[in-house]
Amino acid sequence: MADAQACAARVERFRALMAERGYDAAILRNNPDLRWLTGAERTFDDEVAHTAFVTADGLWLHTDSRYYGTFQSRLGADTPWKLDMDIVSPAWWAAQRIRETRSRVVAVEDTCDLAFFDALGEECAKASVAVLAPRLHGDIAGLRIVKDAEEVELMRHAQSITDAAFEHICGYIKPGLTEQQVRAELEGWMLSNGADSLSFDSIIASGPNGANPHAQPGERLIQRGDMIVMDYGAGYHDYHSDMTRTVCVGEPSDLQRKVYEATRAANEACEAAIHAGVIGREIHELAHKVICEAGFPEYCFVHGLGHGVGLEIHEQPMFNMRNDKPIPAGSVITVEPGTYLPGQFGVRVEDFGIVTENGYEVFTQSPHELVCIPC
Amino acid sequence: MADAQACAARVERFRALMAERGYDAAILRNNPDLRWLTGAERTFDDEVAHTAFVTADGLWLHTDSRYYGTFQSRLGADTPWKLDMDIVSPAWWAAQRIRETRSRVVAVEDTCDLAFFDALGEECAKASVAVLAPRLHGDIAGLRIVKDAEEVELMRHAQSITDAAFEHICGYIKPGLTEQQVRAELEGWMLSNGADSLSFDSIIASGPNGANPHAQPGERLIQRGDMIVMDYGAGYHDYHSDMTRTVCVGEPSDLQRKVYEATRAANEACEAAIHAGVIGREIHELAHKVICEAGFPEYCFVHGLGHGVGLEIHEQPMFNMRNDKPIPAGSVITVEPGTYLPGQFGVRVEDFGIVTENGYEVFTQSPHELVCIPC
Repeated sequence: MADAQACAARVERFRALMAERGYDAAILRNNPDLRWLTGAERTFDDEVAHTAFVTADGLWLHTDSRYYGTFQSRLGADTPWKLDMDIVSPAWWAAQRIRETRSRVVAVEDTCDLAFFDALGEECAKASVAVLAPRLHGDIAGLRIVKDAEEVELMRHAQSITDAAFEHICGYIKPGLTEQQVRAELEGWMLSNGADSLSFDSIIASGPNGANPHAQPGERLIQRGDMIVMDYGAGYHDYHSDMTRTVCVGEPSDLQRKVYEATRAANEACEAAIHAGVIGREIHELAHKVICEAGFPEYCFVHGLGHGVGLEIHEQPMFNMRNDKPIPAGSVITVEPGTYLPGQFGVRVEDFGIVTENGYEVFTQSPHELVCIPC
Repeated sequence: MADAQACAARVERFRALMAERGYDAAILRNNPDLRWLTGAERTFDDEVAHTAFVTADGLWLHTDSRYYGTFQSRLGADTPWKLDMDIVSPAWWAAQRIRETRSRVVAVEDTCDLAFFDALGEECAKASVAVLAPRLHGDIAGLRIVKDAEEVELMRHAQSITDAAFEHICGYIKPGLTEQQVRAELEGWMLSNGADSLSFDSIIASGPNGANPHAQPGERLIQRGDMIVMDYGAGYHDYHSDMTRTVCVGEPSDLQRKVYEATRAANEACEAAIHAGVIGREIHELAHKVICEAGFPEYCFVHGLGHGVGLEIHEQPMFNMRNDKPIPAGSVITVEPGTYLPGQFGVRVEDFGIVTENGYEVFTQSPHELVCIPC
């Protein structure tokens, strides 16, 4: 169960934002935000089934009967959340909370769907309640950037499973297996060894498939001489880990070795340069510079260098061309440069860790040296 | 690759709905709807990264650079879709299509998020374009109810993998394994044997956990005498399968046997009663009647009896208390009665298949007889 004090601190951070903006209340439907504020572990799934109503002195949560018992046990007896599973529409429920609390400025997340927003407007009109509905544009995701100790511990633990899975899968890979078989073994191993979910569908991209950064594993047979890009992670208590390692089946060619070392050097240069206050764009550009200077400008990655990780696998902040903001201490973020040679192979080396005042503490423990699978 | 003629027929069905309602155009962002209309297999993922603009004589699709190459190969050279990956905001892009086509009544799906809808309004205002934006309330999901031959074939194939996985897992289960280990073996086996994805996170609920219809697999050790509820399915080319079987570890008690047979009888009574035109609620009530008359009214399921399956694991139509509509021929739908004894065990028996003029063709081939795992 998430620490009650940590959750109380999160609610206070959000209430400070509400007060600063003059919001009387907020209606929240985005699951990662609700998970962060309530601390209810392993309760939120893919369904948009829950609605929170937050004021300066009240916390209400509406759900349905399927989740009620789980919320009761996860929130505990001393929870400040008033839990409700009345069989009413979420929009009607929210309109009643607006009416009762006489709220006039009620913030709504811009991730909310039109069906709910339209219905909320209709229910308020029926209740003769006039409401201003300013939008939250990822503001809670912004608060979630700075992780607390419990969040860091969960992600370190998730990464320890991911690292152990890497060692396991290196002993499993051999020529003749399909990418899909490697994926199945990897995912099955993580779930059998402490992961309670997968961070995302694993990428296992061998040979020329590795040159596509978003390849889906398929029926291609792994061959001697392949580079294999493996991008995957274990989930633990709703938090994620994220790692990429590229291995060689047998001994690498000179070109494979050079591309690998260039990509690794980009990763290590960035990790050495990170500390609180660095500009997201500048770290991204540093990785490009290293790969270009190593002689591979035409094959250098076009995706972002890194992304925040937490309750979502991709969240704020970002190392990319569009982020001119400083990265705050407490951010948990990936570093994942890649070099992709179309028709030949790809290399990506990704770690993740936490930004500190003076540096970057990497959670990932798997080696940076190129692993060559004997065969 | 999806059949071009089938996709053309789908587009025409949607255009007929647009014409009937007087829509000049529609803006679509919901991935299952886009997958259905375009036929682009294994391209749409969890990201909302694509926008379609449909008029009576034009089809436009906006995506980003990560997906462009995949769309080109999946749509083929003769596609009627004009594909575009200009680096512009989807809302700006849609507003330009509205302006160019002089559309005035532009339908928007109510699944669309506020961020996009707000931005669309701003872009139209900037372009001095006035637009009416009626909502599509799951109308394309409504068109998707009736499956064509290709869709049925994909789901039959997905189910064949699910059935084979059942045989495999029955040989794997033994006392002392955790639920999570069984889940890992099951999911890994499906991915290694033809599934290209999983329909959803598998439910493996043993002993008292089986009494919770939405249990998540955990660290509980399987014991002799347990009933185990297994609800899972293989995914294939974006289509889903869905099956539940309940097995006994060792020999069942008299109570376990009776509850199993009551649940099975409910399943079989419903499957025998289904044909085109039956009312969703009535089949749901029939299952309740059978379980109650067998002596278990207090343990009878409170979830819906069944749901449509296709590009989404839960879609229209439904066998539940709220559906007073007839089920049309061509619907693919589950039948999943359950009996849940809190603190003791649960039983659920679920098949899925297609509703025909005269009956219900079940895709599921796994046996209805209670499987007892020797131990």
